[in-house]
Amino acid sequence: MAMLRAAKHAMRALGSRASDASPFARTLHASTGSKKIVGVFYKANEYASMNPKFVGCVEGSLGIRDWLESQGHQYIVTDDKEGPNCELEKHIPDMHVLITTPFHPAYVTEERIKKAKNLQLLLTAGIGSDHIDLKAAAAAGLTVAEVTGSNTVSVAEDELMRILILVRNFLPGYHQVINGDWNVAAISYRAYDLEGKTVGTVGAGRIGKLLLQRLKPFNCNLLYHDRLKMEPELEQEIGAKFEEDLDKMLPKCDVIVINTPLTEKTRGLFNKERIGKLKKGVLIVNNARGAIMDTQAVADACSSGHIAGYSGDVWNPQPAPKDHPWRYMPNHAMTPHISGTTIDGQLRYAAGTKDMLDRYFKGQDFPAQNYIVKEGKLASQYQ
Amino acid sequence: MAMLRAAKHAMRALGSRASDASPFARTLHASTGSKKIVGVFYKANEYASMNPKFVGCVEGSLGIRDWLESQGHQYIVTDDKEGPNCELEKHIPDMHVLITTPFHPAYVTEERIKKAKNLQLLLTAGIGSDHIDLKAAAAAGLTVAEVTGSNTVSVAEDELMRILILVRNFLPGYHQVINGDWNVAAISYRAYDLEGKTVGTVGAGRIGKLLLQRLKPFNCNLLYHDRLKMEPELEQEIGAKFEEDLDKMLPKCDVIVINTPLTEKTRGLFNKERIGKLKKGVLIVNNARGAIMDTQAVADACSSGHIAGYSGDVWNPQPAPKDHPWRYMPNHAMTPHISGTTIDGQLRYAAGTKDMLDRYFKGQDFPAQNYIVKEGKLASQYQ
Repeated sequence: MAMLRAAKHAMRALGSRASDASPFARTLHASTGSKKIVGVFYKANEYASMNPKFVGCVEGSLGIRDWLESQGHQYIVTDDKEGPNCELEKHIPDMHVLITTPFHPAYVTEERIKKAKNLQLLLTAGIGSDHIDLKAAAAAGLTVAEVTGSNTVSVAEDELMRILILVRNFLPGYHQVINGDWNVAAISYRAYDLEGKTVGTVGAGRIGKLLLQRLKPFNCNLLYHDRLKMEPELEQEIGAKFEEDLDKMLPKCDVIVINTPLTEKTRGLFNKERIGKLKKGVLIVNNARGAIMDTQAVADACSSGHIAGYSGDVWNPQPAPKDHPWRYMPNHAMTPHISGTTIDGQLRYAAGTKDMLDRYFKGQDFPAQNYIVKEGKLASQYQ
Repeated sequence: MAMLRAAKHAMRALGSRASDASPFARTLHASTGSKKIVGVFYKANEYASMNPKFVGCVEGSLGIRDWLESQGHQYIVTDDKEGPNCELEKHIPDMHVLITTPFHPAYVTEERIKKAKNLQLLLTAGIGSDHIDLKAAAAAGLTVAEVTGSNTVSVAEDELMRILILVRNFLPGYHQVINGDWNVAAISYRAYDLEGKTVGTVGAGRIGKLLLQRLKPFNCNLLYHDRLKMEPELEQEIGAKFEEDLDKMLPKCDVIVINTPLTEKTRGLFNKERIGKLKKGVLIVNNARGAIMDTQAVADACSSGHIAGYSGDVWNPQPAPKDHPWRYMPNHAMTPHISGTTIDGQLRYAAGTKDMLDRYFKGQDFPAQNYIVKEGKLASQYQ
């Protein structure tokens, strides 16, 4: 693939488009010899030894170290990913494969891609590759792939939890308990049932569909906005109504859930103006990406009460700095980026990453749905 | 009914059983003239005016004051329910009807029943009448009724929220956010998907069934223990397996949910011995009644880690004192008693209470499922 990359550069120099590279497709992953593979994960320290299935951390290293090293590959794992002197930077010039995650994202900028002369493959252990400059990766002839589907259930479950936490006003009650108080009225004056409320999802891809299926027995009014209308049978099974026009759907919603990737089109989608048109008292759940929101507009609307509750596990940037306004705004139910990295999710994305590495060593294609950048083209959801 | 009560006392003196009273059934609620009705609810103070639908508090008074007073009845409402000098005690000797709730329970003891010479009817605005000495009420010829079904959906939704909060280890992440931290590993080493886990409900009455229906799309292994096996069609629709022997079911469960009323049989059901036989790391959700648990045994098992998470909104007693051990035990997700008193639930149990009062004034029977004590007999779930 390094050869492919070189060939592509040459072709580009000759005026060819990167997407003309399809003749090379059969040999895309034909790659022999010892490889240098770098993984960037979150560090677990004292938690590493507390669960033998905890493979998603630096110490767990996806459980593939022995397998890689027994085949003669080098495997560097770190959590140190920021700044010019970080551990990651040391390995950029000669690494062949970089494994990252959305939970502790190593930001792969155009500048880093330029430095990474041997780089062939960027694997996301999980779902969501927006921490990578995908256009730069495509232009450089790199392959980017995710473990599509590996943690969709994990995220959908977490979204339903967050909807309920907001609708039912859980956290004020919890705070009373730990503070020695008891004041039912201070909770119940704005605690509701989910039943009968209008819930809309912005995006109904894999995660959005799983959420809608789990919402169905709650007897809500379910809406979805997506590029594509579902097949009629699936739509009926799920019981959700298609809304072609996002801005017509949003003001109908008591609860809005974000299930769209971060792209040029969705960055800052929920700005001050759009939030101002939402129902007063709307609840928002966002496990997709923090940058889909205008950070300050969300904080302001939570302060004014226009947004009555906001919950999610995604921030911009990550880790969120200590002074991030979402840490301090009223009526939030935020966590660090966690929904896709349950133990069950980790085991699935570790297995999927191993599978793709194995195929890469053997020169085989990946499962088609895993590709985010292939032969200079971005997957449709990122276009 | 005061006459009935007198007649019953006379019959008992003659050696008749209270349940021999059926000949009087037609006239059970024939009751004319001005009545004194007392309601005991939680006080809302500054929260009372924040939501026009907030009828479940002292200030809201179930929204029936004008209706009652326009018919010449007296309606006293208070939250002051404890001790010999409380407001409730002043009205016990001459009240005809007492309306209580499980959220701020007025404990109706045998002693209070003896003092309440005019008392005819005890209405629970909500579900769960264990704060009333039901045997004493039956012996005194009183009628006890609930608004059956009024907040079953509210409680079932809340249970599913609590299951997810525990399984997915939500609260440590939330604490990190508000404390300025970011440590994904400290959450994820014991965060799981609900999918594939074994969830068992102790009791599959109205609430238990609603919970199981909502759990179905999560692809769990669902078990239930109840006095009665469901009809095969319902069992198949819900997708849960009947477990006749409670102590055979419990050790199989990753998550246990309590959905049984508090009775002589269920009081202290989860004692040290039974908890010791549960799977290590079990999660328990209890929105039923606090006294079904041995308080200290639960706190000890949370401290040892045998119970990995405990969430519920019921305590013994209520309000929970400041030094209640469940406020301080690790890995809890407790709230004050709130799940059944959402705004939606309040509107339903207020309407159901008004309906029963109307029937009482007109001498009509209540909906059959609402009776907890009728003609000296306890409803089957309390026997």
